[in-house]
Amino acid sequence: MTFDHAARLARLAALLPAREVPALLVTSAVNVRYLTGLASSNAAVLVRADGSALLATDNRYIGKARTLGVPVVEASDVAARLAEPGAGIEAASMTVATYRRLGAGLVPLGPVVEELRAVKDDDELELLRTACAITDQAFADVSARVVPGMTERELARLLENRMTELGADKPAFDSIVAAGENGAIPHHAPTDRELRAGDLVTMDFGARYQGYHADMTRTVSLGPPAGWQREIYDLVAAAQRAGRHALAPGASAGDVDRAARSIVAEAGHGEHFRHGLGHGVGLEIHEEPFLGPSRTGRLEDRVPITVEPGVYLPGRGGVRIEDTLVTRAGGPELFTKTSKELLIL
Amino acid sequence: MTFDHAARLARLAALLPAREVPALLVTSAVNVRYLTGLASSNAAVLVRADGSALLATDNRYIGKARTLGVPVVEASDVAARLAEPGAGIEAASMTVATYRRLGAGLVPLGPVVEELRAVKDDDELELLRTACAITDQAFADVSARVVPGMTERELARLLENRMTELGADKPAFDSIVAAGENGAIPHHAPTDRELRAGDLVTMDFGARYQGYHADMTRTVSLGPPAGWQREIYDLVAAAQRAGRHALAPGASAGDVDRAARSIVAEAGHGEHFRHGLGHGVGLEIHEEPFLGPSRTGRLEDRVPITVEPGVYLPGRGGVRIEDTLVTRAGGPELFTKTSKELLIL
Repeated sequence: MTFDHAARLARLAALLPAREVPALLVTSAVNVRYLTGLASSNAAVLVRADGSALLATDNRYIGKARTLGVPVVEASDVAARLAEPGAGIEAASMTVATYRRLGAGLVPLGPVVEELRAVKDDDELELLRTACAITDQAFADVSARVVPGMTERELARLLENRMTELGADKPAFDSIVAAGENGAIPHHAPTDRELRAGDLVTMDFGARYQGYHADMTRTVSLGPPAGWQREIYDLVAAAQRAGRHALAPGASAGDVDRAARSIVAEAGHGEHFRHGLGHGVGLEIHEEPFLGPSRTGRLEDRVPITVEPGVYLPGRGGVRIEDTLVTRAGGPELFTKTSKELLIL
Repeated sequence: MTFDHAARLARLAALLPAREVPALLVTSAVNVRYLTGLASSNAAVLVRADGSALLATDNRYIGKARTLGVPVVEASDVAARLAEPGAGIEAASMTVATYRRLGAGLVPLGPVVEELRAVKDDDELELLRTACAITDQAFADVSARVVPGMTERELARLLENRMTELGADKPAFDSIVAAGENGAIPHHAPTDRELRAGDLVTMDFGARYQGYHADMTRTVSLGPPAGWQREIYDLVAAAQRAGRHALAPGASAGDVDRAARSIVAEAGHGEHFRHGLGHGVGLEIHEEPFLGPSRTGRLEDRVPITVEPGVYLPGRGGVRIEDTLVTRAGGPELFTKTSKELLIL
């Protein structure tokens, strides 16, 4: 897959006059990759308002860098090599140590490249579709093997191994598998707790494919669900549906969150859903835009994003249901296609 | 495994007077984990020179945080909740955006907690031994399955899956598998290139176990090695041995590097070994101290570190041999025990 990096550099250059800088020193590794195609742990690119760019990296990556069609210079301290007075810097990722080392005259800016990255082109969407397809297939293959006595860690490992067997670079993030009472912890890390009949089991995982991240959560039931389990499952499913239906170009991030959250709150579980509704995905697993009660931005077209409400009952358990979708004018396209009917294993 | 976090906080507090700050605002996630035991994506701890500490985290992690024996406060913006005029901040990890948001009066400092972390206690060494034992076992199990026609990606996946089967949290870093001419690229990412008879194949990988990182590299030969392959293998092995033997409490980081590098240089391959000799390992895969030509610090006792010289011949191939060891007064203890005889598969 080759991306049109020249077009990306041009779009970035066009944003700089409004930020009142003649150039932007891009030091975030993922932003450098987005703009130039160079994946490395030590590179930076200076992009000027006239559209010209200069990439710097060290001897480990210089060979690759020279194949990318952008002027390249070799340096160990890449930021120092490219910094010039008046240039903008990426304040959300540059460290204080680097900033102080570079000296005065740089202009700390908020997200710039991140705003470009929120809207995906066709090639990026295709990679995300593949990442989500791998995620769906891994769930289908592994859920057929879930049995009582398996531990959370074992189930997480099966999911992760299956994703890489299916072509994933690696897991998109540390998988969450939370059984029974652990399901009440939204960010539970898998343990040696065994899965038991009567548990709800939440699996939050995804594949990274050629740098692009999928994110999906399903909660399944080991044996027939109890009344309270069915009740919160149906509630979260209804909220998730409402959130998905509210996704549209032009919608406010706060309104999408409220579409889902109000359903949970009206059922008396508002205090049991304490995280945001979703987040953008792409070259990072969490990126712009974010969906939450106090978010004010408006969604654009072609923005891949998650919708993931949950209800967490301390000491008892929880349910979360999450898809990765992309905003489109005619209604969102669902990337993770696994059924959201309650799966009883 | 429970660590003595109170002792760590006390050791940190004792360092603050020399840094001329009354308190340190610790925001690096791995440093917060080291000091308090809380693994999270949003936490900070303020440590005062009198040894008292206050931990802040958000509602996702607050339950766990309250079990750790340190005073806790719930906050979303954890750095803002704890910042106070005159406190030191961690300049190597705090972003410019956070620093500017917190307002004036904070004192940017270089590594403080990182210096404490370089010297490991018995419990940490035991976790590293286990991480390295998993790494050794995965190599033994997978190297027996290497056949021509297997791709770099497939081999990397076998290593990674085996490590997690053996109890690793996950791979310690993105595994490197580099066959034939790709072996000339020190940080090569695995591709679909197939392994062929006559290739040297470099595998650089390791297990993460309970947060602690192993790092090992072995280069094997598919079929009998050519003369030039055997020559650079023996050279790198000799350099690696010299580097290991130079490891000792009190040795300078630059001298250890030179012990290995001079052997490579005397054989005429100095320009083909362009990275540092090694790095500390622990809660991070790369941490203090670093071994390199211009490094001036001295090693202490109980410092786990890698020794990993390489020779890289552009377009032809390369060899790297790496162990994880720990400095001890009586000579280093080898954690990765896989043979360094050239394995011919």
